[in-house]
Amino acid sequence: MELPDAFGRYRPHIDASLRSVLGEGSPPLLYQMMRYHLGWEDEVGRSLQNGSGKALRPTLLLLACETVGGDWQKALPAAAALELVHNFSLIHDDIQDQDRERRHRPTVWAVWGEAQAINAGDALLAVAHLAALSSLDIGVPSAKVVETVKTLDRSTLEMVEGQSMDLSFEASNDITLRDYMEMISRKTGALFDCAFRLGALIGGDDAKVVEAFAECGRRLGIAFQVRDDMLGVWGSPAETGKPLGADILRRKKSLPIVYALSARGQERDELAEVYTQPEIRQEDVAVVLKALEALGAPEYCRSLAMSKKAEALAQLEEVGLEPGSYQAIKEMADFVLERTY
Amino acid sequence: MELPDAFGRYRPHIDASLRSVLGEGSPPLLYQMMRYHLGWEDEVGRSLQNGSGKALRPTLLLLACETVGGDWQKALPAAAALELVHNFSLIHDDIQDQDRERRHRPTVWAVWGEAQAINAGDALLAVAHLAALSSLDIGVPSAKVVETVKTLDRSTLEMVEGQSMDLSFEASNDITLRDYMEMISRKTGALFDCAFRLGALIGGDDAKVVEAFAECGRRLGIAFQVRDDMLGVWGSPAETGKPLGADILRRKKSLPIVYALSARGQERDELAEVYTQPEIRQEDVAVVLKALEALGAPEYCRSLAMSKKAEALAQLEEVGLEPGSYQAIKEMADFVLERTY
Repeated sequence: MELPDAFGRYRPHIDASLRSVLGEGSPPLLYQMMRYHLGWEDEVGRSLQNGSGKALRPTLLLLACETVGGDWQKALPAAAALELVHNFSLIHDDIQDQDRERRHRPTVWAVWGEAQAINAGDALLAVAHLAALSSLDIGVPSAKVVETVKTLDRSTLEMVEGQSMDLSFEASNDITLRDYMEMISRKTGALFDCAFRLGALIGGDDAKVVEAFAECGRRLGIAFQVRDDMLGVWGSPAETGKPLGADILRRKKSLPIVYALSARGQERDELAEVYTQPEIRQEDVAVVLKALEALGAPEYCRSLAMSKKAEALAQLEEVGLEPGSYQAIKEMADFVLERTY
Repeated sequence: MELPDAFGRYRPHIDASLRSVLGEGSPPLLYQMMRYHLGWEDEVGRSLQNGSGKALRPTLLLLACETVGGDWQKALPAAAALELVHNFSLIHDDIQDQDRERRHRPTVWAVWGEAQAINAGDALLAVAHLAALSSLDIGVPSAKVVETVKTLDRSTLEMVEGQSMDLSFEASNDITLRDYMEMISRKTGALFDCAFRLGALIGGDDAKVVEAFAECGRRLGIAFQVRDDMLGVWGSPAETGKPLGADILRRKKSLPIVYALSARGQERDELAEVYTQPEIRQEDVAVVLKALEALGAPEYCRSLAMSKKAEALAQLEEVGLEPGSYQAIKEMADFVLERTY
């Protein structure tokens, strides 16, 4: 599917904002790692074109700001901050998961080692905060800047809580669907909540509208993660850049697996047997895929994502927004559900 | 030597402030790791008495606030935030240095693994920010809260820069005294600068006085690190809790070594030979200690620390503070130089 227009519209401004807060610095290695991770440079510091991600979270933030009738340019520092918080978490996640590749490139720790990669993440989080604080320089009042930073910190903490839960799940074989939903609400939902909350906060001043956007964002984030989990199991290697059944081989307790393990019957027991083995081999992948199919995991995931999307949009309707006014958000929600990478 | 009075005076208030921002939370493991690291609990969550550090940085912050005539109670959230930023860095440093012990206890990563320890550090940094923002709730005006958070973020970034330099130094054999000073000014000086800057900022309103305190703090931080490096080589194992010549065995490029390697003569060459070996053995320690002695490293370190302390106090004199008004700061400066642990 094509990317919604919103991505292209804001992208150059998000990039400019990111580059204004993160340039050269000392020691050079630390700043090089950050620029590398953001896809601006290769391993030896040469400039790259098109190396960056989609910048989904800052795009949602600016869209929320515009949708409530605000000046989205005033929200650019917050948007840059959010993108940096997201990227701080990716650098640390890659160390924690021992992932050597992201977006078809070696991860920061794979190039520079774990110790320096921890620094790169830590520094990026500090730069993210400084970005948010620079809202002050473009006329956002102090009280709103304080609220922006507080929202960002709470969301960061919640995201780390989710990451901590996710890591604990790896060692357990009795994760319930409820545990799983709680975990992704924090790990992924928190920053989507933050995106919409900050956009509505900077763009407007109605506390009820801000809450509705935040709730909408949280549910979209959950739908996004469900889709992510689907792609991790059934995604096309050519599009995702990951091997077939990547998350199965990694024994990840993602939604399809948690759902199937919570079912009953022969297929469930076969699946459970595979997951009690110390290691999952390539030949087990077919067994797992067959069991997931038989237990209806694809349909379950798809319908959960769709209902979260519907719930998300209903939040905006409930506070009386005209459907026409959030058409662009609807397009983003469709994208979240239909994306193939 | 005895601890200066200031430690005891503020301590219960600092502790209360820390406990008000960091209590129970979910997932329990994440919050347990943070409380464990702060010395409040043992590995299985039982309360500990006297497990915490000296809380030097928040004590300096409150002292600076009081010295400029401010209400130090208003600076408590910032003091708690600073202590948490310091502890965030310790959790990550222990992973990076692969240190299994701190303050006679296993480090967080040694108990719960590196992946979860990264989360514990990340979460502590987010909690630190939320602590600083809670200044608002006790009547600190928004504009000053924004300034507080910005100072904290800049200092955090500078500290991470210093940590990144320090790690790079390990792989190099030609670190100059200038490189070393630049590194410790960031790695340690930044948070001491932050302590005094925040205290003077929250307690007063004179930009020149704030700068003088910040410069004073930075130099005290450098003196503190020099003393730390001395204790790492010549400290008493019983007092520091580290083995004799701990930093020599770890090949740490601390001040005594950097100084001695920058000298000339036979002892310097013997030392350089030891440091080009892939590993330093227990029997090399005596050789290194003899060379350091012969090259005058103890005197060099001692006089550098003393001159930084003198420079620090001169900053306060220069902006016209009555010597009697900063007697408690002088006592703290003496402590920084004479401490044996």
